Amino acid sequence: MSPIHMHHTDAPEGTAIEDVTLIIFGASGDLTARKLIPALFHLWKQGFLSDRAAIVGVARREKTDESFRKEMQEAIGIGETDDDQTVWDGFSKLLFYREADVADADQFRHLKASVESIEESRQLTGRRIVYMATAPDLFMPGVEALAQADMIPPREHADRLRVVFEKPFGHDLDSARELTDSLSRLLEERQIFRIDHYLGKETVQNILLFRFGNAIFEPLFNRTHVDHVQITVAESQGMERGRGAYYDNSGALRDVLQNHVLQLLCLVAMEPPALFNGENIRDEKLKILQALRPGIDGDENLDHWAIRGQYASGDVDGKSAVAYTDEDRVPADSSRETYVAMYVEIDNWRWEGVPFYLRTGKRLKERVTEIAIQFNRPPLNLFTTVECDGDLCEMVDSQPNTLIFRIQPRESISLAISTKRPGMQYQIHPVKMDFEYEEAFTIELPEAYERLLLDVMRGDSTLFTRSDELEAAWQFVTPVLDAWESSDGKPALYPAGSWGPQEADELLATSNRHWRRPDPHSRKS
Amino acid sequence: MSPIHMHHTDAPEGTAIEDVTLIIFGASGDLTARKLIPALFHLWKQGFLSDRAAIVGVARREKTDESFRKEMQEAIGIGETDDDQTVWDGFSKLLFYREADVADADQFRHLKASVESIEESRQLTGRRIVYMATAPDLFMPGVEALAQADMIPPREHADRLRVVFEKPFGHDLDSARELTDSLSRLLEERQIFRIDHYLGKETVQNILLFRFGNAIFEPLFNRTHVDHVQITVAESQGMERGRGAYYDNSGALRDVLQNHVLQLLCLVAMEPPALFNGENIRDEKLKILQALRPGIDGDENLDHWAIRGQYASGDVDGKSAVAYTDEDRVPADSSRETYVAMYVEIDNWRWEGVPFYLRTGKRLKERVTEIAIQFNRPPLNLFTTVECDGDLCEMVDSQPNTLIFRIQPRESISLAISTKRPGMQYQIHPVKMDFEYEEAFTIELPEAYERLLLDVMRGDSTLFTRSDELEAAWQFVTPVLDAWESSDGKPALYPAGSWGPQEADELLATSNRHWRRPDPHSRKS
Repeated sequence: MSPIHMHHTDAPEGTAIEDVTLIIFGASGDLTARKLIPALFHLWKQGFLSDRAAIVGVARREKTDESFRKEMQEAIGIGETDDDQTVWDGFSKLLFYREADVADADQFRHLKASVESIEESRQLTGRRIVYMATAPDLFMPGVEALAQADMIPPREHADRLRVVFEKPFGHDLDSARELTDSLSRLLEERQIFRIDHYLGKETVQNILLFRFGNAIFEPLFNRTHVDHVQITVAESQGMERGRGAYYDNSGALRDVLQNHVLQLLCLVAMEPPALFNGENIRDEKLKILQALRPGIDGDENLDHWAIRGQYASGDVDGKSAVAYTDEDRVPADSSRETYVAMYVEIDNWRWEGVPFYLRTGKRLKERVTEIAIQFNRPPLNLFTTVECDGDLCEMVDSQPNTLIFRIQPRESISLAISTKRPGMQYQIHPVKMDFEYEEAFTIELPEAYERLLLDVMRGDSTLFTRSDELEAAWQFVTPVLDAWESSDGKPALYPAGSWGPQEADELLATSNRHWRRPDPHSRKS
Repeated sequence: MSPIHMHHTDAPEGTAIEDVTLIIFGASGDLTARKLIPALFHLWKQGFLSDRAAIVGVARREKTDESFRKEMQEAIGIGETDDDQTVWDGFSKLLFYREADVADADQFRHLKASVESIEESRQLTGRRIVYMATAPDLFMPGVEALAQADMIPPREHADRLRVVFEKPFGHDLDSARELTDSLSRLLEERQIFRIDHYLGKETVQNILLFRFGNAIFEPLFNRTHVDHVQITVAESQGMERGRGAYYDNSGALRDVLQNHVLQLLCLVAMEPPALFNGENIRDEKLKILQALRPGIDGDENLDHWAIRGQYASGDVDGKSAVAYTDEDRVPADSSRETYVAMYVEIDNWRWEGVPFYLRTGKRLKERVTEIAIQFNRPPLNLFTTVECDGDLCEMVDSQPNTLIFRIQPRESISLAISTKRPGMQYQIHPVKMDFEYEEAFTIELPEAYERLLLDVMRGDSTLFTRSDELEAAWQFVTPVLDAWESSDGKPALYPAGSWGPQEADELLATSNRHWRRPDPHSRKS
């Protein structure tokens, strides 16, 4: 391969996106200001978005192009005197705002004319992306309004429109199916981009490159060598900013496990794809979801493989935190789970019999997302194992090798190994080999939304959830949701600032395993 | 396992060596002052050597206990005002000096009486270690003198005397066999401790703990996953301190490859032992030496698998260095090799077909000893691979995974892996996961001789070469020595400060492989 010199901005010369019109529904909302516009600004700054592109904010509120631009500038935090001001001036010319209500067909006809006029003036060829940054109950009305205004191209030109949806995609299996069915009457699957922002994170994308770009890990990723896998998505936050109303209708299983956690599970467990593209990768992920089953005995006894918890009051980072049921906009008698732990298995040749332990929750001790692959112990223990804290050492059970993908914070990959403790004995001491993204690379890591928005523009569906994946995930979790929501039982309480309820420990304790205690502040965790 | 608190000195309470008499033959030599006494001093300071122990220096020169103690104090570098002075005063009481010439039976009878009187006064029970820190031609005369003076215990009390030998153990297969045979008439194999100081290094001992204390590497250490192995013992020194006279009679193959390099090869390639003890481990090492054979075509064509080189003048570390043949006490027409490279294979189930490339030499670019296990490439290359130097990146061939044991300097273990380069493409970037001993452990690494001397006292033969190992190593290298020494050919010249002769590159180039360029100054080498 002959060397090709590239600049690290990543934007290959001559391939910048020239002709895209991005229409954001729900443009007066939080997501637009906090995530979408900053991501687009960075993409434009790096040369991924041409000066001819148009970004049209759409919402019901009355705004002018000028006031929208002003709001977005403030949201990004660029002052008048800032060096970035000239850069911003260039970018702000891409921004437009149009009022429209999805319930109002007339307004959508106007919107269509207005978008076409913007495109004409900018010599855009009409390749459009509609971003549904709205509440989920407006997904279908939004798409229907597009259809009525004749803004959905005929199937043979399907690639002229892509529509991006923010989670949640349904509330359970039935509602997800209904949404999928309704969308499929108006859009092709390849026009639909369901965003799971977790998949935009560098370390998440790295799981596949790490697994299939190295020759030495893949031979170990199977039932012969892996003892079990733990996936943790822990949040220390509670119900800030009035989030309780939404959350109490959703919960940890719907809000995080069904999407983020199962997606991570798919990436770490899937077979190598035939080709590295969206369809092949999603085919392999789907196979994992289809092979998912409750851990041992789980079919008959829900409590043996799925545990729900709810936080009581406690201390988080030295500050006292109220119980979930005392949070703003949460009913005092709520049975909503703020924590879920699951023990699942994957019924295929690679993973049969290997426990996958999944957990996610609010108000846990640390904000940390990680995947830990714990390997079997050596078949023969030839050595004594010693752990030291400064001068004081003690003999401990030998630690099995563990490979850890830390997804947040401080993205890193580390490998817990045993080495000789310096000295006159053959004693083993556990150490870490690791590499941290921020240490290893001088480049700033791109925000998840930058990558995902660019992928929508490029038509790369790898990091987006396909409808059959979505359905398979719902199919797996919905019986649990139904059982919990129809029972009189209550979630197990855990103190805010802990690692979850005791009941979750017992999922692992029955097989002499235990949850990891991730310490995101230490390289040696 | 219940925790046991231990102090990091390693010396378990109540198990200090109480009753040893160490007799050093050749006590006026360099090794005694530079290595043995400092190592014994540290062992005593750490509590491994009791206050009753006796260290009796023996040589022909006239010295008193006092003058010997003074010399040793200066050799360690302890001044009168030093804080260590009181510590030294304690240790110096262990030191004695006795004149004796191995050729003089009377003197040895006196020596025996004198040692017994020291032992009596110190209540020592007569467990003795004799350390042969002499020229090799005095090994047999020394042991014979011991025998004549009745200082060798009867076979049923063999464990009351251990005799330590410094390399070289013979000059070729015949002389090694002769030495072994002569020794075996007077000593049991288990009384003989042949020191290879390389085996006393922490990282060398760690090879076995790393391989057999972790579950994830051993499944990869075989012909299915390993492309090839490189073992490098590179020195930047030439013939300092008049070393030329000895070296010109020895050379790189005898002086380093036959012992150090082949021992490293054994440790990295051997099967797991049934038990972690000296006999079991040496049984496994022996099997490797017995399975060793020249690389492909090698049997018929020596040049296809063994290359000898000799340094010409050049630059080492910015200083000009003379050619080997211009060194002090080296004949101007010398054909002695100062560099040797070999391509060998191990004919067993684990390693069949995997090339092991060995090299060692003087006046090379860096002083570095490492073992590099290069794994196969991934079977399918799904990604582009990119290497960046600051902002400038270029596409390169993907790098295979490599595991590197760095033995000196800066002892470390590192693993070259591929990860995702942060950014908008699926690009692979090679990085290192590593751990360095000095970073990972606050304890100072013990000197090789400390460990080895303690092992002799403990009777642990793991790190010492057994006679059958020695014979197998000589059996492998002697035909090469004979061929080179009997031919009119000359070694290939290489400039001092280079990585050796071009001919050595061709050993690997025929199979599209190449020597590594170790950079001991960088963590990223």
